[in-house]
Amino acid sequence: MTTPVDLLIHNATQLVTCASPDGPKRGKAMRDVGLIRDGAVAVADGEIVAVGPTPDLRADYAARERVDASGKVVCPGFVDPHTHVVYAGDRVGEFEMRIQGATYMEIMQAGGGIVSTMKATRAATVEELVAASRPRLDAMLALGTTAVEVKTGYGLDTENELKMLQAIADLNATHPADLIPTFLGAHAIPPEYRGRTDEYVDLVVEEMLPAVREWRLTNLHSPISTPQFPLFCDVFCEAGVFDRDQSRRVLAAGLALGLKPKIHADEFESLGGVVLAVELGAASADHLDVTPPAEIEVLAQSSTVGVVLPAVNFNLGSTHFADARTMIDAGVALALATDINPGSAPCPSMPLVMAIACRYQRTLPAEALNAGTINAAYALDLGDRLGSIEVGKQADLLIVDAPDYRHLAYQFGVNLVDRVVKRGRLRIVP
Amino acid sequence: MTTPVDLLIHNATQLVTCASPDGPKRGKAMRDVGLIRDGAVAVADGEIVAVGPTPDLRADYAARERVDASGKVVCPGFVDPHTHVVYAGDRVGEFEMRIQGATYMEIMQAGGGIVSTMKATRAATVEELVAASRPRLDAMLALGTTAVEVKTGYGLDTENELKMLQAIADLNATHPADLIPTFLGAHAIPPEYRGRTDEYVDLVVEEMLPAVREWRLTNLHSPISTPQFPLFCDVFCEAGVFDRDQSRRVLAAGLALGLKPKIHADEFESLGGVVLAVELGAASADHLDVTPPAEIEVLAQSSTVGVVLPAVNFNLGSTHFADARTMIDAGVALALATDINPGSAPCPSMPLVMAIACRYQRTLPAEALNAGTINAAYALDLGDRLGSIEVGKQADLLIVDAPDYRHLAYQFGVNLVDRVVKRGRLRIVP
Repeated sequence: MTTPVDLLIHNATQLVTCASPDGPKRGKAMRDVGLIRDGAVAVADGEIVAVGPTPDLRADYAARERVDASGKVVCPGFVDPHTHVVYAGDRVGEFEMRIQGATYMEIMQAGGGIVSTMKATRAATVEELVAASRPRLDAMLALGTTAVEVKTGYGLDTENELKMLQAIADLNATHPADLIPTFLGAHAIPPEYRGRTDEYVDLVVEEMLPAVREWRLTNLHSPISTPQFPLFCDVFCEAGVFDRDQSRRVLAAGLALGLKPKIHADEFESLGGVVLAVELGAASADHLDVTPPAEIEVLAQSSTVGVVLPAVNFNLGSTHFADARTMIDAGVALALATDINPGSAPCPSMPLVMAIACRYQRTLPAEALNAGTINAAYALDLGDRLGSIEVGKQADLLIVDAPDYRHLAYQFGVNLVDRVVKRGRLRIVP
Repeated sequence: MTTPVDLLIHNATQLVTCASPDGPKRGKAMRDVGLIRDGAVAVADGEIVAVGPTPDLRADYAARERVDASGKVVCPGFVDPHTHVVYAGDRVGEFEMRIQGATYMEIMQAGGGIVSTMKATRAATVEELVAASRPRLDAMLALGTTAVEVKTGYGLDTENELKMLQAIADLNATHPADLIPTFLGAHAIPPEYRGRTDEYVDLVVEEMLPAVREWRLTNLHSPISTPQFPLFCDVFCEAGVFDRDQSRRVLAAGLALGLKPKIHADEFESLGGVVLAVELGAASADHLDVTPPAEIEVLAQSSTVGVVLPAVNFNLGSTHFADARTMIDAGVALALATDINPGSAPCPSMPLVMAIACRYQRTLPAEALNAGTINAAYALDLGDRLGSIEVGKQADLLIVDAPDYRHLAYQFGVNLVDRVVKRGRLRIVP
């Protein structure tokens, strides 16, 4: 007796599950990708129904469609847990400024940086935002990213923050990738509030957050409002942006309305954002470039995932990177993300992020892969649905044109993803 | 009266010619990409017959095929002037060793490194070498590289060096990209000559080089033996490999047989390789990671192109890069290359190399583009045939899915090349 299924991928030279059902991987477990040689995976109704050695599955399942993955790797779709992929405009001009020596903060203070993207995003309609962002999501999907966290934060007023949420919702409804939204009203201080940060925090807390909650309630028909898709609240906790008390106010207010916290912490200066994140039970603390050793310990003891963003350091031509090696060794549940955005990381590629991490943060290829799949899913509170090849999970899979998963980080500047399976549907991506 | 042509690409938001008919670009000229707004290019019989503003060309030329490049950039195909793309095996295992701290020299001394690729390459047939290398050339072409220098140097005995040349010739005859061969018998000391470097140099000079010349003469039917395609002779001038006198012997012997010199110099230690290169009139001096200021001056005053290979530094997780900024400012004709090889640069992407150069070597996007096109062509003595969009040159062109050429270096980890035109033939590349 064989069970009928929609899709059977078989003969994979390596099938790597990245399975970790009881929480994110930590420490030595991050070196284990759950490798099955000559592996197979069966898919029905968009979910994974069986995983194991090819001979076992071939006997048990009759598939409508079969894919022979000999010579190839099958792995989970990448989860990119920190992005700003929805925006209008570009910042290619200031790229040249930076080559000639201007810093991120200098560009921001000169009215470039986030503010220039804010202006372009405010000027765009929902439809224009969707049209500008869709090709970027296409590129990400082609590079293997099947789920993407997306932050607001280029609206910086109530109307435009809601417009960004709507663009994210519309893209989620029409693009194959899953988009998981994060409200980041507290991304920067808009020019009209310059010098009045506390008043802007008032606006975020008293007007934006209630409006976001209202928007969410009245958009229950949208896929992103289903229980599977949380809505996060994030803040840029950084010197010159929002201090720890202001950050706490934003995150606590979000939490009270059911928005789970995330935080941008320790990109340039440490303000204790990691401790704040842990105290509030944040899903993740992100950047962590200058996190002090004591706070790495705090993070390691917590359920908060640490998300590092080495494409940003690369993009800035920095020789300093977050100390991912120490974090993993200390027991932090580490995830990787692109941070794709027009200023500090015009990069859609999770494999390149893994490649950078393996070279400048001394992560092993296995650690980088777990950080870009299962741990990234946990950074979005979706570790039970996404990020690994386990029975019952959404069938988001990659067929990689290499005989060993380590090629994903070993080779760089090339897309090894041959085919993408999203919710069980096999896609040919350009 | 309109002139009939095969192909007209028109309406390009930016057409960048990278034209430099009188030699490679230097100094301030490297900032000039020869930008034509609303540009067009006409192609007949595989060559460029006209370049200019769209309205002019549209009136003068009747094309069998037209491509509308509105919203896009048209630029020359990339020329990759330093590669080891023909080899067997991979080195994904030692990639993990290196993450855990082993140096290039330690890996080499432990019998890994070049020697492991030598063993795999010696064990392969010509057909196997061709089959292993073709997908890498496909990836390079898809990323915009239309001409590729390829070195031997994994055979390290006469028979296997000739086998590598044959594989390069066969690939050149059957792959759309042009392959320009370089004999690099003096790439490393093979295990059977360990401790007897001078005797190995004898073998290179007395047996290999004459055999290479003989092979070349008897392979005149091969495209690579046409006058357009020079054959170079290269040497790895480095502490622990070939010293300056040994390097001079190899290059002078090659020169006497009509093989123009190239050199691997100053990757780890400076042995005066740049001065040697200039003295011998080498086409290029490559790596240049630790070239002393006085030798940068010597290079700047010479006709030898300086080729830097930042993907190698990136791959080694190094924070030190060749000082391309100083070189350009001093007047060196700078070129960029991938150095694609299984050990120190598993990277086929010229755009990623440009992206690294703009971030870690402070080259401007224009400088990086000239370095990867026209100057790279001059590094192969092919500046009169390849590397720019000029009338009479081979029609190797890219249509890039971005409105500004600077996006090629600004965005990273993504392939912006939409279509490749090789010898006038429009190709859809995967």
